[in-house]
Amino acid sequence: MTVDAKPFAVAVCASALPIGREVYESVLGDVASVVLLTELDPGARADALRSADALIVLAPHAELSAEERGQLDRLRFVQTLSVGIDHIPPGLFPDDLPMGNTAGAAAPAIAEHIVAMALAAAKRLMAEHANLAAGRFGYGRENRMLAGGTACLYGYGEIGRETARLLRAFGMRIEALNRSGRRDGHVDWIGSDADLEACLDRCDLLAVTASLNPATRGRIGAAELARMKSDAILVIASRAAIVDQAALYRHLQDTPGFTACIDTWWRETMALDTPFEPEFPFLDLPNVIGSPHNSGLVPGALDMLAASAARNVRNFLTGEGPVAFVADADRAA
Amino acid sequence: MTVDAKPFAVAVCASALPIGREVYESVLGDVASVVLLTELDPGARADALRSADALIVLAPHAELSAEERGQLDRLRFVQTLSVGIDHIPPGLFPDDLPMGNTAGAAAPAIAEHIVAMALAAAKRLMAEHANLAAGRFGYGRENRMLAGGTACLYGYGEIGRETARLLRAFGMRIEALNRSGRRDGHVDWIGSDADLEACLDRCDLLAVTASLNPATRGRIGAAELARMKSDAILVIASRAAIVDQAALYRHLQDTPGFTACIDTWWRETMALDTPFEPEFPFLDLPNVIGSPHNSGLVPGALDMLAASAARNVRNFLTGEGPVAFVADADRAA
Repeated sequence: MTVDAKPFAVAVCASALPIGREVYESVLGDVASVVLLTELDPGARADALRSADALIVLAPHAELSAEERGQLDRLRFVQTLSVGIDHIPPGLFPDDLPMGNTAGAAAPAIAEHIVAMALAAAKRLMAEHANLAAGRFGYGRENRMLAGGTACLYGYGEIGRETARLLRAFGMRIEALNRSGRRDGHVDWIGSDADLEACLDRCDLLAVTASLNPATRGRIGAAELARMKSDAILVIASRAAIVDQAALYRHLQDTPGFTACIDTWWRETMALDTPFEPEFPFLDLPNVIGSPHNSGLVPGALDMLAASAARNVRNFLTGEGPVAFVADADRAA
Repeated sequence: MTVDAKPFAVAVCASALPIGREVYESVLGDVASVVLLTELDPGARADALRSADALIVLAPHAELSAEERGQLDRLRFVQTLSVGIDHIPPGLFPDDLPMGNTAGAAAPAIAEHIVAMALAAAKRLMAEHANLAAGRFGYGRENRMLAGGTACLYGYGEIGRETARLLRAFGMRIEALNRSGRRDGHVDWIGSDADLEACLDRCDLLAVTASLNPATRGRIGAAELARMKSDAILVIASRAAIVDQAALYRHLQDTPGFTACIDTWWRETMALDTPFEPEFPFLDLPNVIGSPHNSGLVPGALDMLAASAARNVRNFLTGEGPVAFVADADRAA
């Protein structure tokens, strides 16, 4: 055993993101050797896969061939750089292989984005800016306050929690729905998916912050939208497919006072300035505010994600701290 | 003296706003007779002016003729329905006549609007919405967080205080400038106008929340803007004339990363859908977000203003509570 030998080996195959090895090593370096698979020749790559205790991935179905996935003889942990894992085909890894995600790393940025969109809707920023640009001064048309309203957070993980904290400061009543029933000081009321209908009846703002899985896919359809107040605000922050897009498009057409703020889309490509071709022309509607799934993209975001992933891997391997595991329900998605 | 006689008489001449007498009477009714001058014939109007202890006004130079102002024999207090009084010609009333304003009534709504605009700028909501509408998906272009940044509030009255409270929840450092030097729990640092330059050097967000008076008019010009970070965000919330508009327009042209959010304008008409004809084509710039001085126009805002004005008048006449007086410096504007 040389002086350089480390107890663990971690292989990184998240090649699409410009993250240097030093970010992972700053967290893992004292306990694990870290290799970036994209820097290795085929032979070294196979060796690295065979010796890896943990794998850090973004889109493992594209990053590893089937043959390479067969080389993961020692693999004990898969860590994604994403929060959601609905893009990873079910069954790609054995069901009993623990999987971690980066829940929490981007939560503060995403929560700010949710509040930004909700406020833009409440204050009619898009509409009145367009009025001014067209030479009309719209003084006298009322906008709304968040204060005094009720927010429903559909999904209360790290993003929901941080969003609740911010909306609370605005004086909103916070109701949240999650799987665990775990509540904290930022929530006035918490329930489960079965309580969604009751929450929809009374909320002024609905933020979709749940993970996408069989239970949440398409959960918010025509019947659910029809229950909501005619001037409610919907913010789609986690995954668009939780909302039935045809139903949402029709609801927006029929309900001009209702606003949808859409950051994640039903069909999107994660690359800069690619064509945007939604199945429904949401952007032609005056009551839609769109952003390009960029809620988490703030300065330092990639390094923060990588450090969060490395921290989770370290905690799993060493047993020194808490591990963020992907929920079983989400792995079945 | 009849059973109906009240110790005080209040005349309301704010005719432009649709506020019913019942709102004033709900606050003042047990201690004062309340008349709306617009409901009276000329003879009764003159009688009401002669007997008024207090006057509630919006634009008294237009609402009362010079002859009528000469009939205010018993007048002891003038109460405006506005926060700013820069639209009232100096000298219209005797310098020693106490004047009250509605500072505070609209502060929560205006503070939400300030944060909404700052977030829209930080998250590039306008630009990315336009990208999507043009069929381009701008994933990968960074936006920014408020968290970790420094906000400078130029003016720390009721609006500044409520804005500070909200921005604090986002994790911003709050620096404020005011006349009194009075600070509170929402501020990390407070200074006076002489500290403006130092604050401009370090702030990420500058909110103009001061009243317009000879000391603040044009205070933020080319030299002041040049000190600011090239990616700073400016929100003009109280009065536009505190900022030199020609200098701002040039600064925005020369500094594409700088964003100006403008709610109050150098020239504006307070009526719905009137032509908007700014002296500089601010709305043609991609780094401007505009709204039509509607930050305080939320449901119930007018009744809230009227109740606030009536409460101030009541406190002045009865001595039962604190009175919001217009600062002497603002009366000289």
